[in-house]
Amino acid sequence: MSLTPEQLAEIEQLREQRSSTLRAVSEGMEGHLYTAYPVLDHGFVRVIDYMGDDAAICQAARVSYGKGTKSVQNDEGLIRYLMRHWHSTPFEMCEIKLHVKLPVFVARQWIRHRTANVNEYSARYSILDREFYIPAPEHVAAQSVVNNQGRGDILTGEEAARVLEILKADSARAYDNYENMISQDGQQGLARELARMNLPANIYTQWYWKVDLHNLLHFLRLRADAHAQYEIRVYAEEMCKIVADWVPFAYRAFEDYRMGGATLSSGALDCVRRMIKGEEVTQENSGMSAGEWREFQAVLNG
Amino acid sequence: MSLTPEQLAEIEQLREQRSSTLRAVSEGMEGHLYTAYPVLDHGFVRVIDYMGDDAAICQAARVSYGKGTKSVQNDEGLIRYLMRHWHSTPFEMCEIKLHVKLPVFVARQWIRHRTANVNEYSARYSILDREFYIPAPEHVAAQSVVNNQGRGDILTGEEAARVLEILKADSARAYDNYENMISQDGQQGLARELARMNLPANIYTQWYWKVDLHNLLHFLRLRADAHAQYEIRVYAEEMCKIVADWVPFAYRAFEDYRMGGATLSSGALDCVRRMIKGEEVTQENSGMSAGEWREFQAVLNG
Amino acid sequence: MSLTPEQLAEIEQLREQRSSTLRAVSEGMEGHLYTAYPVLDHGFVRVIDYMGDDAAICQAARVSYGKGTKSVQNDEGLIRYLMRHWHSTPFEMCEIKLHVKLPVFVARQWIRHRTANVNEYSARYSILDREFYIPAPEHVAAQSVVNNQGRGDILTGEEAARVLEILKADSARAYDNYENMISQDGQQGLARELARMNLPANIYTQWYWKVDLHNLLHFLRLRADAHAQYEIRVYAEEMCKIVADWVPFAYRAFEDYRMGGATLSSGALDCVRRMIKGEEVTQENSGMSAGEWREFQAVLNG
Amino acid sequence: MSLTPEQLAEIEQLREQRSSTLRAVSEGMEGHLYTAYPVLDHGFVRVIDYMGDDAAICQAARVSYGKGTKSVQNDEGLIRYLMRHWHSTPFEMCEIKLHVKLPVFVARQWIRHRTANVNEYSARYSILDREFYIPAPEHVAAQSVVNNQGRGDILTGEEAARVLEILKADSARAYDNYENMISQDGQQGLARELARMNLPANIYTQWYWKVDLHNLLHFLRLRADAHAQYEIRVYAEEMCKIVADWVPFAYRAFEDYRMGGATLSSGALDCVRRMIKGEEVTQENSGMSAGEWREFQAVLNG
Repeated sequence: MSLTPEQLAEIEQLREQRSSTLRAVSEGMEGHLYTAYPVLDHGFVRVIDYMGDDAAICQAARVSYGKGTKSVQNDEGLIRYLMRHWHSTPFEMCEIKLHVKLPVFVARQWIRHRTANVNEYSARYSILDREFYIPAPEHVAAQSVVNNQGRGDILTGEEAARVLEILKADSARAYDNYENMISQDGQQGLARELARMNLPANIYTQWYWKVDLHNLLHFLRLRADAHAQYEIRVYAEEMCKIVADWVPFAYRAFEDYRMGGATLSSGALDCVRRMIKGEEVTQENSGMSAGEWREFQAVLNG
Repeated sequence: MSLTPEQLAEIEQLREQRSSTLRAVSEGMEGHLYTAYPVLDHGFVRVIDYMGDDAAICQAARVSYGKGTKSVQNDEGLIRYLMRHWHSTPFEMCEIKLHVKLPVFVARQWIRHRTANVNEYSARYSILDREFYIPAPEHVAAQSVVNNQGRGDILTGEEAARVLEILKADSARAYDNYENMISQDGQQGLARELARMNLPANIYTQWYWKVDLHNLLHFLRLRADAHAQYEIRVYAEEMCKIVADWVPFAYRAFEDYRMGGATLSSGALDCVRRMIKGEEVTQENSGMSAGEWREFQAVLNG
Repeated sequence: MSLTPEQLAEIEQLREQRSSTLRAVSEGMEGHLYTAYPVLDHGFVRVIDYMGDDAAICQAARVSYGKGTKSVQNDEGLIRYLMRHWHSTPFEMCEIKLHVKLPVFVARQWIRHRTANVNEYSARYSILDREFYIPAPEHVAAQSVVNNQGRGDILTGEEAARVLEILKADSARAYDNYENMISQDGQQGLARELARMNLPANIYTQWYWKVDLHNLLHFLRLRADAHAQYEIRVYAEEMCKIVADWVPFAYRAFEDYRMGGATLSSGALDCVRRMIKGEEVTQENSGMSAGEWREFQAVLNG
Repeated sequence: MSLTPEQLAEIEQLREQRSSTLRAVSEGMEGHLYTAYPVLDHGFVRVIDYMGDDAAICQAARVSYGKGTKSVQNDEGLIRYLMRHWHSTPFEMCEIKLHVKLPVFVARQWIRHRTANVNEYSARYSILDREFYIPAPEHVAAQSVVNNQGRGDILTGEEAARVLEILKADSARAYDNYENMISQDGQQGLARELARMNLPANIYTQWYWKVDLHNLLHFLRLRADAHAQYEIRVYAEEMCKIVADWVPFAYRAFEDYRMGGATLSSGALDCVRRMIKGEEVTQENSGMSAGEWREFQAVLNG
């Protein structure tokens, strides 16, 4: 992470200004506010603001359920019930605003989650900083041979060194030329909106990203998953820790019913029933394709 | 408004619990939190939570504009610039959560604004209260004769009395029968999800409604407009007062550029140019239809 | 269903006008176009337009997967893979436009699905028809005693007769009074936007509803489910038949992975693993709440 | 544009397969289907599918307006009325699906319009082609001196030559190194999801983009505007031509009320009223800021 001393001082100052409010406060979240948690080599995630807590989820749900349920269910029980039954609207009643610094190729995956508000630092108006993501050696991996959507073994030796050398050299040259093109020293200087096109996808950008808890959990389920690309997964994992402190009941229910759960097809449920009865089920008599069977085995083996 | 003493006591209690927070606080908004502002005969609007203030709009905008603009524009100037140029994303960085009690026919208009989060009190699970909107005599109006989308003159005399009598009697009978059908006294009792179908559209419902400032202002522009139906307009007007205290700069810009402004067509702009040059422009030589000309005249006459 | 002879003739006429097009055509869907399929006592669903077919899902997915996958996967296999892995964007590339006539209390549930386009017949401008949903005797049910969100036994005898009598009489009286209030015969006539508030929630409304296939399937999963209220479920079931003819591969995958599948929590998966190993698992040693265990048993028992 | 002979043959083939349909057909649009219209040096826009026409807008609007309006308004009049009064839902009833090839930095602006469906060619799974946007000499412009969000004079002479040389050389080197890193010839080959980060923002990507007419017109208003960046504006302009042939009434209304119109603030309207009365209004007595006055003058001068 590369915050300047001025930026760190600004964050420090924000963390010292306490105000009085009548709103719901999550003590777990207050501990995180403004602090920049490092992700990758120059990125970070930091919470700028939040709305609501576990109780706010229940409060909203009880308007929709009315007097009938208030006495019988305690808050955690209600939250687990809502999560289990896909009642998403009460979770939409909490909101979070983050400031994220991230490589452009990660930002391009991230933005595909449309139900969120975004203000991105604009390279049309401003000059981007000289900051590029260069993977740590243990993350420089080969194309997967079993799955053409992922990575396989870690590269080693000369090949790994060559890759890192290329990424560093090309980033540096691209940025030098970006600076040269926009320079107004002895020349007119190319428009920023044009010069930015020379910059590679590992340059860092930053944005304010605001999202409700339901959509955030959906994002985390997909992006904290083992199949997500490593470079976005580390952001999701950092956010999981923050959410766990913000709304502990909701987060625990999310772990049980979403992250740790699995959706089985009608065919897979049928196999489960046969297996519980003691029947030997194989791919051949399962009715599943090879890929589906492999995924089913992975679920059964936990 | 018909809050029970218990409900009023709950609100009072919430207004006494101050907490400490590191978040941005809008002092104007803190004064409104939880208080139920009466609307129509039994409805209300009250703020449950909010996120952000005028400064938060600028903070988000400056991420997207970067270092370049920070020193030259003060906050109000920047907010006016953003509003004038339809830069909506920074306004999306503020959020508000309301608890609203409103007649069902108003709720049906309201819900058409899709970019919001809603938890409604469910008549499938719970029993609705005996509360119906009966218009005040000065709002019982005839069908408009110039515009088949609105109201004309106030009804008076016997006709007005008859209307009010019908609305009251039909509401009362419908509710009596609703209660009779669901009663489990000496009978099984009809399912609530079925019994509710007997209730007319002037019964009150309630919901939690959460929306960002950009979408809220869009809602207010349409619903606080003179052409909106009176029964939703009064909710919008009450919300305008709250927003004016929450984000005073943004609200003032909204008044100048949206509520008090007007969009002119290319033909209307052409007429304006001719009129400024001193030319006599009439509907005949304007190129506009009768309806369009009437609307244009209304704009010119303020 | 109560279409007038004129309306039926209009539909007939549309079904006779064939045009030539270069677009993708789903023969299964062409057979449904415009025809009004009856639902409940006066409602219907009919397809007004559609975009895309099974092949269009693959076509869009292959842009996002590129050359690499085109040869290895056949269309149905690809569609099943996409469904199983929650790749929703290719399904968003098909679109359907329906004309639906439905009771207002059903419309209010339906509209909570926000990701759709809607044009509703406006009772602010127009006069609603005298058409009310009166349940068939076999659907007049008591409040459930095990679940306060649903119905239990069918009402019989005098109680059932009384309910039907009330619903019919109150609807008729409300509509008579609605007509009286808006009548301009010997009086000014109340504005339509006010008079409509006297009408109960079982009156029929109608709308054009346009949605993409992904969001439609999400709607069908929730609303064709056994726990959905009967009066909306019958619309969903009618739409399922249409979708099965429109995009047969996608619909079959939807049945296998969504409608017939189930999501198990991490705790439930753990129990499944223990049961397959031959362990006796009971609610007591399952770690689940009573409600969760009951739902788990229902899944295992199919 | 750089379509391969095989791709051109595939398009040709699609343009020869006419089918019979009962759906609404726009003859103007049929003429465009599948054809790739060149934009920039390697990009294109082509229509893959569409739903609806001008009549479909009216048909949907008339459900929401009911019997009352059918006879009085002809189709074009109704469409103009809807556009003038911001009744957006009937325009949402038409849909278009496009295949677009565009540079990544254009795609990043484009994707900020969230109300659309997108399937992008994935550089995580597939190998991108060696195609980069290199501006034509007449579009290589300096940073604007009056507006730090745009371009000023065209660069000439040595500076222009240097810029073009840099863009070409850096693109070529980045792609060579991308190919080298993923090559499996004598080495393992870097994962595609990592190698792509070396590619600059002027590389071309492609996607399927599906949007309703209301949101498309909103996109066009912002992106076909003179203030939009040239490289996205040319896509918008190409799409304007297509829309003009698809829904001619709607497009003409859009030109009159949106593209050719202007929104005036309450202060600006006040100035207009004073000017029509013959008063001399200057920035000093206008109450406007310098920037606002300049924009106002631009509107008055057409």
